[in-house]
Amino acid sequence: MKNYVVKGNLCYSENANSVRLLPNHYLVIENGLCAGTFAELPEKYRALPLEDFGDKLIMPGMSDLHVHAPQFSFRGLGMDMELLDWLNTYTFPEESKYRDLEYADRAYESFARHLRVSATTRAAVFGTIHVPATTLLMEKMEKSGLVSYIGKVNMNRNSPDFLCETSVEQALADTEQWICDTKDRFQNTYPIITPRFIPSCTDELMHGLRKLVEKYKVPVQSHLSENYGEIAWVQELCPDSKFYGDAYDRFGLFGGDHKCIMAHCVHSGEEEIELMRKNGVYIAHSPLSNSNLSSGVAPISKYMECGMNVALASDVAGGDTENLFRSIGHAIRASKLRWRLLDQQVAALTVDQAFYIATVGGGSFFGKVGSFEDGYEFDAIVIDDTALDHPQELSLRARFERSLYLSDDRQIAAKFVRAERLF
Amino acid sequence: MKNYVVKGNLCYSENANSVRLLPNHYLVIENGLCAGTFAELPEKYRALPLEDFGDKLIMPGMSDLHVHAPQFSFRGLGMDMELLDWLNTYTFPEESKYRDLEYADRAYESFARHLRVSATTRAAVFGTIHVPATTLLMEKMEKSGLVSYIGKVNMNRNSPDFLCETSVEQALADTEQWICDTKDRFQNTYPIITPRFIPSCTDELMHGLRKLVEKYKVPVQSHLSENYGEIAWVQELCPDSKFYGDAYDRFGLFGGDHKCIMAHCVHSGEEEIELMRKNGVYIAHSPLSNSNLSSGVAPISKYMECGMNVALASDVAGGDTENLFRSIGHAIRASKLRWRLLDQQVAALTVDQAFYIATVGGGSFFGKVGSFEDGYEFDAIVIDDTALDHPQELSLRARFERSLYLSDDRQIAAKFVRAERLF
Repeated sequence: MKNYVVKGNLCYSENANSVRLLPNHYLVIENGLCAGTFAELPEKYRALPLEDFGDKLIMPGMSDLHVHAPQFSFRGLGMDMELLDWLNTYTFPEESKYRDLEYADRAYESFARHLRVSATTRAAVFGTIHVPATTLLMEKMEKSGLVSYIGKVNMNRNSPDFLCETSVEQALADTEQWICDTKDRFQNTYPIITPRFIPSCTDELMHGLRKLVEKYKVPVQSHLSENYGEIAWVQELCPDSKFYGDAYDRFGLFGGDHKCIMAHCVHSGEEEIELMRKNGVYIAHSPLSNSNLSSGVAPISKYMECGMNVALASDVAGGDTENLFRSIGHAIRASKLRWRLLDQQVAALTVDQAFYIATVGGGSFFGKVGSFEDGYEFDAIVIDDTALDHPQELSLRARFERSLYLSDDRQIAAKFVRAERLF
Repeated sequence: MKNYVVKGNLCYSENANSVRLLPNHYLVIENGLCAGTFAELPEKYRALPLEDFGDKLIMPGMSDLHVHAPQFSFRGLGMDMELLDWLNTYTFPEESKYRDLEYADRAYESFARHLRVSATTRAAVFGTIHVPATTLLMEKMEKSGLVSYIGKVNMNRNSPDFLCETSVEQALADTEQWICDTKDRFQNTYPIITPRFIPSCTDELMHGLRKLVEKYKVPVQSHLSENYGEIAWVQELCPDSKFYGDAYDRFGLFGGDHKCIMAHCVHSGEEEIELMRKNGVYIAHSPLSNSNLSSGVAPISKYMECGMNVALASDVAGGDTENLFRSIGHAIRASKLRWRLLDQQVAALTVDQAFYIATVGGGSFFGKVGSFEDGYEFDAIVIDDTALDHPQELSLRARFERSLYLSDDRQIAAKFVRAERLF
C-alpha cells in the first residue's frame, strides 16, 4: 500500500537557503511519491488511508553520505590523533577483525540497528576489504529498511599486511564477483566501488576499478583533501597529478560519467573545486570528523554558492555519532568558527542550509529524495518534541530549529523510507 | 546516613592531565566525604552499607559554572547572531517574562527538572533582575538536590526599559534584602552577586555591589571578554580601564579577596590573564556558546598550564544544551579547530583535561569537590553504558572515553550530591 495521506506540521526545504513550514497540513503519497501538500484535503483524496500525526513535525529523512560501518564499534574513541596516525593506530587494526564473520555479524547488527532508529533514511557506507563481511552488511542494511550503497573497500598499498589486498588480479576479481552477486539481489541495497583513497591504491588497481565502473554502471565513493599530511603524500605518490582530485580523475574515478562521492574536501583548492563542480562530484561534508581529527572545516557555504552537490555525513568513527542531528548542529558551529578564526569571506552556515544539505543535498544522490515536493520519494521522520519541554507557546519555526539542535532518536516517533513505514 | 560504601569502576582525575581508573573498586564514604578507594574492602568498613554498582562506571559529578536559568526556555533557538544583537533580540525580551511569577514557575520547574537528571551536581546560575522569580528559582534548585549559587542579575544601563533597574538605590536595596533573605535559608543553595556585565551596569551600581560583597562575604559572577564588539564597547564605556578585566577590578569585583567567576575569557590579553591568575578568578569555559554565537575559542590549555582556575560551563542558552557531556566533547573539538585554524602554540585539549575541568576544575569553586580523593565531598554520577553497545571487549579506559563522548541523561543510572542519593 503506497497510496495514503499523512498529516502534521510539514517541514522541508523550499530551496538551499530556506525551509518551507506548513502547519497542520496534509501530504498525499501516491505510488510511493509525494503528490501534493494541502491545508484542506481535496475531495479526491478523502478515500485514502490517513495517518494523523497531530502536532508532531514531519520532515524528510536524512542522507548520511559517508559512514564507515566497521568503525561504528569504536565511535567516541581514539580521537587524539590526526588522520594518518589514526588510521594506522586505531582504524586498520579494527577493520582487520571483519575477516571474522562472527565478529562482523555482531558489529554490523549493532550498526544497522542504530541506523534504523536514527534520522538517517539513506546512506553511502564503507565496509572493509572482506567480501563475506561486506555482503553480510548489505543483508543487514536491507533488513533495516534503509536505502543504502555499500562499498567493499579496495586497498593494496601502504596498508598493513593484515589489511591489504596483495594481488591486484584477485582484488579486482573479488570485487567484480561481489558486484555481480549483489547488484540485483536487494530492493534497497546496492554496491558502490570504494577505493579507500589514493595512498592505499596502486595505479593498476585504480585502472581496474574504473573498468568495473564502466562495465556495471556503479557509482564511486572515496576520500579527498581531508588533511594536510594526506594531501602532501598524494602529491608525492602521484607527482604528475595537478592536485589530489586530479589524481582520481586521471583514473576516471572522479565523476563526470558516473556518480561519485568524495568525503571531506576540507582543503580543496580552486582547480579541484572547479573540477568537482564540472563533474558533479558529491561532497560528503563530515564536520564532526573534521574537528575530531583536527583536519579543519570545509568551506560549505562557498561550495553551495557555486552550485555544487553538497551532502552531510556522520563519518563514523572520525565522527563520534551516527546521529545526524549532531552533525547538523556541528556543521553550523564549525562553520562559525571557520568564519571567526580563519576566513570571513566564507559565510557561516544557517540552520536552513544545514537542513538542506542533510535532506535534499544528500538525497539527490539517490534520485528525487529529501523533499516533500511533488514527485519526490516519500522518506520521512516524524518528530515528537514534547520531551523538549518549554514554558511558552513556540512557533513552528522555533520548534523546527530546536528539533534539529536538540533531537536524538528519542524524538523520532515514526519513520518512512520509500513510503514504507519502518516504525 | 552518610557512611557507606559504593563499588564499581571508579574514574576520577589524578591531576589536570590524567584520569585514574580503578576497575571494580570500593569507595568508602565517611561523614559524607570520600575516605579511601580499595581493591579489597578493609575489615573495618565491612559493616557499612554497600551499594554495588556492578560493572557500571562511577565518576565525580560535574560542575556547570555558568548557566542562565531563564534562557533554558529558548535553548537551541536564535543562534544566528553575535552576542550584542543576540542579547537585544532574543535574550532580553525572554528574560523580561520572569516578572510574571507564574511564567517563572513553569520555566524554572523545567530547568530544575532537567538539571536534576543531568551529569551536573553543582552549578553557578544566572537568574533575572526579578527578586521573586530568582527566589523561586532558588527554592526549585534546593528541591532538585543539586548544590548551586544563584544570582539575581543587576543591570541598569544600556538595557531595554522592560528589563532595567531604573533606580540604583532600589536595585541595591532589593539585592541586599534578597541576600539577607536567602543566604542562610537553604542547605544547598546560596546567593551570588551578579552584575550582568560592564556595559549594563553603572559605576554607582558596581560600587554598591562591591559593598555587598564585603558586607556579606558573597562571591561574584559575571561575563568577560566574550566578543570583540563587547570588548570594544567596554573600552568606550570605561576609557580609564587598561583592559576589560581591569574595569571589574577597579570596582573590586574581580576576585582576590572574594571568589569570582568570569564566563568566557575568549579574547583575554596577557595582562588580563595575569590579573585573573593572580586574583584566582574562575574562568567558566563555555565552548558551545562561544561557537554558537561566533565568539571564538578560549585558549584553555594555556590557561591550565598557567595554573589558572578553569571550569566547564554549558552557558545555556548561548549553549544549546545543559548536557555537560556535550560541552566536554565540544570543548575538545573547538580546541582542535583553534589549533588547526588559528594558533598552533596552544595545544588542543585532551579528553582527560576536559574531564578535569568539568569535575575538579569547577568543583573546586565549591570546596573539595569533583574528585574521589580523600576528603572530597561525595558527588557522583553512575554511568550505565550498556546501551552504547559494542561488539568487542572494551577496556575501562575506552568505556570512560566513550561515556564522555556519547552519554546523555539516559546513561546516568544513579546520582549523588553531598553524599545524598538523588536517584
